[in-house]
Parts: sequence; structure tokens; C-alpha cells
Amino acid sequence: MKKFMNVAASMVAESLEGFVSAHDRVVVFGPGRKFIRRRHLTPGKVAIISGGGAGHEPMHVGFVGHGMLDAACTGHIFTSPTPDQIIAAIEETDTGAGCLLIVKNYDGDIMNFEMAAEAVIGRHRIETVIASDDVAAQGAARSSGRRGVAGTLIVEKILGAAAEAGMNLAGLKALGERLSTQIRTMGVALSGVTVPDTARATFTLEPDEMEVGVGIHGEPGLFRQKITDADTIASMICSTILADMELQNSDRALLLVNGFGGTPTPELYLIYNVARRLFEVSGIRIVRSLVGTYVTSLDMAGLSVTLSLFDEEALRLWDEPVLTAALQWGRHDQR
Amino acid sequence: MKKFMNVAASMVAESLEGFVSAHDRVVVFGPGRKFIRRRHLTPGKVAIISGGGAGHEPMHVGFVGHGMLDAACTGHIFTSPTPDQIIAAIEETDTGAGCLLIVKNYDGDIMNFEMAAEAVIGRHRIETVIASDDVAAQGAARSSGRRGVAGTLIVEKILGAAAEAGMNLAGLKALGERLSTQIRTMGVALSGVTVPDTARATFTLEPDEMEVGVGIHGEPGLFRQKITDADTIASMICSTILADMELQNSDRALLLVNGFGGTPTPELYLIYNVARRLFEVSGIRIVRSLVGTYVTSLDMAGLSVTLSLFDEEALRLWDEPVLTAALQWGRHDQR
Repeated sequence: MKKFMNVAASMVAESLEGFVSAHDRVVVFGPGRKFIRRRHLTPGKVAIISGGGAGHEPMHVGFVGHGMLDAACTGHIFTSPTPDQIIAAIEETDTGAGCLLIVKNYDGDIMNFEMAAEAVIGRHRIETVIASDDVAAQGAARSSGRRGVAGTLIVEKILGAAAEAGMNLAGLKALGERLSTQIRTMGVALSGVTVPDTARATFTLEPDEMEVGVGIHGEPGLFRQKITDADTIASMICSTILADMELQNSDRALLLVNGFGGTPTPELYLIYNVARRLFEVSGIRIVRSLVGTYVTSLDMAGLSVTLSLFDEEALRLWDEPVLTAALQWGRHDQR
Repeated sequence: MKKFMNVAASMVAESLEGFVSAHDRVVVFGPGRKFIRRRHLTPGKVAIISGGGAGHEPMHVGFVGHGMLDAACTGHIFTSPTPDQIIAAIEETDTGAGCLLIVKNYDGDIMNFEMAAEAVIGRHRIETVIASDDVAAQGAARSSGRRGVAGTLIVEKILGAAAEAGMNLAGLKALGERLSTQIRTMGVALSGVTVPDTARATFTLEPDEMEVGVGIHGEPGLFRQKITDADTIASMICSTILADMELQNSDRALLLVNGFGGTPTPELYLIYNVARRLFEVSGIRIVRSLVGTYVTSLDMAGLSVTLSLFDEEALRLWDEPVLTAALQWGRHDQR
């Protein structure tokens, strides 16, 4: 394992310090460095808080800022933040309208966010939205039902925009639950993950193998097979996603192709190209696109494809301005 | 070698097709798909054209759009675009004010851009700016003098903003030459590059080795050594950069930490954190920061650090709005 680091124990803290210092006009550390929050909070707005293990960067810290998250809590690598981190973020960012917690569907995350929510009962109004977009993970390791993976960023963007526009806590909760039914993701990996603490790969693939149906914590996927060409890989992913969605006529959608950390951008665009064609053949209009490395699993080579059906409201909220370290556009940008 | 691709011969073309389709509100293909250009050209503005081999994405195609490049020509992997591609881009984007060519300092690129410029003499006014920011490559392989590496994006951003604001061809040429003296980059790699055509790594490192002073074409660097901790690596890079710059008192600068394709974002922020401290100790004020994967070498694990001294004009132009696939901010964003 070769990494740019000093010692494994301080890797997350050092990296977050660099992150805050590079983006100090957008974000600041909360007290005790327990979380990262927007530099400028908006009084009266529902606070949107997310978090999870480190190793998925830029998610979630890269999504803190105007139009998206108010705070993000980062745990150790692939480990949920602790309840006291989440409680501190709630106390700091709730300006009176309550907090919406966006939690990826992993047992550890759900437990700690629930404990935090229970600890502040009577002092803060809290609602929770569970992100669970992974079609490959019904009953997979470390989660009950679908895992929350790359589609989480879509939930965070759209709910962030809605909160910015003044939507109340109940409205955000309902919108989040509606969104969750319309976002599906599937991932494949060409390598495992090397966790700095252990310096060992979480799984090892032969030079001609790929792992299908992976999550973002280095856990094995659904099955392993010989690597095939991009057309075949994209076709398998897209058909699995489509089989798990309830399509209407003339659906409009966002297509997100997300790299896991070790996959070069041109390969993401190549898969995007195939996936877009396949979805369009199935009658879906791709009206928005996002291609890049957003929801990662350290240095894993691999990618996921996410299809998110967009109604009028979702499309409008997706297009609203966002100003974060990792996702940024203005009102009049054409995307 | 495992890559998401169909066949190596069409990999670049398929990836560019995906790129244009994902960003079709910002870019379009030129005739014959010889280059990618802005969807909306501005009559009377000097056209800014760049290009180079594929494998460095998002550079240059990801920098085409408002406030940066008018066109980008992509060659085969690590191979200059041909003169006819460049000529086609000039003919399409020159709306009367001439063309500025931004060329990375590699012999192949310089030759082909020169041939294109000569071919259009009498029909188009052309000036050329050579990007040459790599401190490690005075006399290195495939270039004469310093290679053009990650600092190229700073040249493209600033000259793009100046052209957008109406600067004429002579002014842009002079500004570009001034910029070139103020930008220095150094890179290190933890792995070689696997070129799809050959399916072989360009160089191989032992599990405990790193290559120091690498460029972005998979060529070996200046020397090889045992990998050390991040503090030591950053210190070596920063001192080499500083030794090659003429500093004034209280210089202001942009600090760019750029991933080569296979290095996760948290490691980039960790190196940023150390490098920023080191530069600040040397009396440099880091007033702008950019951390991410922008100028790549396929799947190479590694990174480069770039320091770009900013006078008032450079800072103002850097902050001007930009709307491209890979770099995007608005007028009022706080960075």
C-alpha cells in the first residue's frame, strides 16, 4: 500500500484540516473539530445535516455550503461518526426550524444518527431521511435493505435546495421519502480497497476479474466475474437498474456516473456514453448529467451508475444554485 | 491492465462522445469531430485554443466554455493533435480578433501547433503562449526546457478571463509570457501509467518506491527513492519549487494540488495542508486554492503541487466567472 500520508491514525484529521483551509470561504470547523459546517448559516432555515465514515470524499464534507448541507460529520475511515459529533452539529446549526438528518442506509450510521436524535428530543425538532439507492444490496453486508451510495448526493442536493427555498421540516421529510423511491444505483469494481489502518486490501481480484454489485466500504459485491467490455458492463448495470424502477411513459432523469476514486475520468465518460444510449433506448430522457468522482471508496478502481427520475420539482431544485467545494453552479449556468 | 473500455482504438473517441453529450449545453463537436468548441462563440473576442494528447482529462476539453477556452483539440493518448485538427479549430473559432494558442512545452505539441499556425498565415492572426511550469524537467524527456504540466490550467483560466474581458491578441500574448514566469509545478508518482494501446505500464515501481519529478506522459522522473511520509514529500516539493522562483516580499499566490488520476481526494488535501503551511512559513500568502484531479496521466497514482504567484491582475482574472465542465464558478462565489 502506498499512500500520501504521515501516520494512519491522523490521516483523516490532517486531510480535513487541509480541506477546511482550502475552502475557508465556504466552510469552517465546528467546536472541537467534531464536524464541518457552512461558514454562514441562514437563520430560520431547516438545517440539513449528513455524515458518515471517512473515505468517501468529497462526500459529505464537499457538499457543505449554500444550497446543500449545513453540516457534515466525518467518522474514522468507513466508520460512522459518533452520536456526540452529530449532537454537536445539531446544536450548532439548528436556528429554530429544526434539523433534517440525511443518513446512508448502513446499520452503524443509522444507529448513531438515531441515538443523536433521541438525545436532543425536546430541545430540537429532528426528522431523518434514509438514502438507500443501491439496487445490488438488498440484504447485503452491513445494511438492511438497499445501501445508500452515490445517489445520496442527489438527495442532499435536492433537499438542500428545498431547505434554502424555505421548505419546512415536514415538507423536506416527505420530499426526501419521495426522492428515495426514484433513485437507483449499481456499482462495479476492478480492485478492492486498501484501508490505511490495516494496509491490506479488503478483497483481491485477479488481473482479469471484476466485482459486480459493490458498495462503497470495500465489502465484496454480489458476484465476481471475468471483466468484459464497457458495452457489456454498462448493459448489465442499466438493465439491473431499470428492472428495479417503476417507469412511466416519457420519464425524465438525471444520469450520474460516479468514480470510486481510482478510475480515470475518460473511462467514466465512456461508460456514461453507453449508459445514456441504453437508457434513452428504454424511453428515458436524460435531461441532466453528472460525471465525476463524488462518492468514493478510497482508492478503489470502479464506478457506479445512478439513474434518478426527475419530476418538475426535482428538476427545478437540482438546477438551483449550489456553492460547495465539490458541487458548484450558479443560477444562470446552463448544465 | 483493467479499464472500462471496448477497444483501445476507439477509447478516446467514445469518451469524447460521452463528454460532449454530458455537457451539451456548454460544448459541441467541431466539424468532423476534429475538436471540441464552446457552444456559443463571442464575435470579436480573441479565440483561445489549446489541446494536446488524450489521457490528461479533464484538461483540455473540460476547460472549454465561457471564461476559458474556445476550443480544445485532442490527439491520441499522449500524442499531439495533428495540424489539421488545430487548423480546423482556428478556422471555426476565429471571429476576427485572432487566435491565441496555448501549448504545453513538449516537442510534438509545439511542432504541430507551429505547423498549424504557419498554414493559416495571411488568413488568421495567431499568437502562441508556451506553458512550461515543471521545475523538474529542465532537459527531461520529450521536452526542451520545462515541461507544461498542471500549471497550464492556470494559464488557460487567466488568459480565458482576459480574452472574455476584451483583451487583444498582443495583450494576451504579453500576459501569458508574464504568467509563465510565475508558475512552478513539481510532481511525484506512486505508480506508472498503463497505456491502453500497449496494456503495459510505462515504468514499474516497487511497493515501497516513488518516482520524483514526473511529468504527465508516463515518462520516468528525475530519480526514484523509497517512499517517505507526506511531510517529507511535501517539503521536498515545496523547497524545489521555491528554489526556482524569484520571490518578492509578501507574495500572494494560488496553491494548486493536482491528482494524476489514481490518487484519492483526501490524500490531495493532506498534501495541500502540509504544502500550504510550508509556503506560508516562507512568507507567501496563499490567497486562492484549488485541490482536485484536473491535469492527469491516465490512472497514474501521484500528484503535483503548483505555486502560482498572483499580482492584482492575475487574482482579479482568476476570480472572474468560468463555466466549463471541469471548472465552474460565478461572479459572486466566495472561494
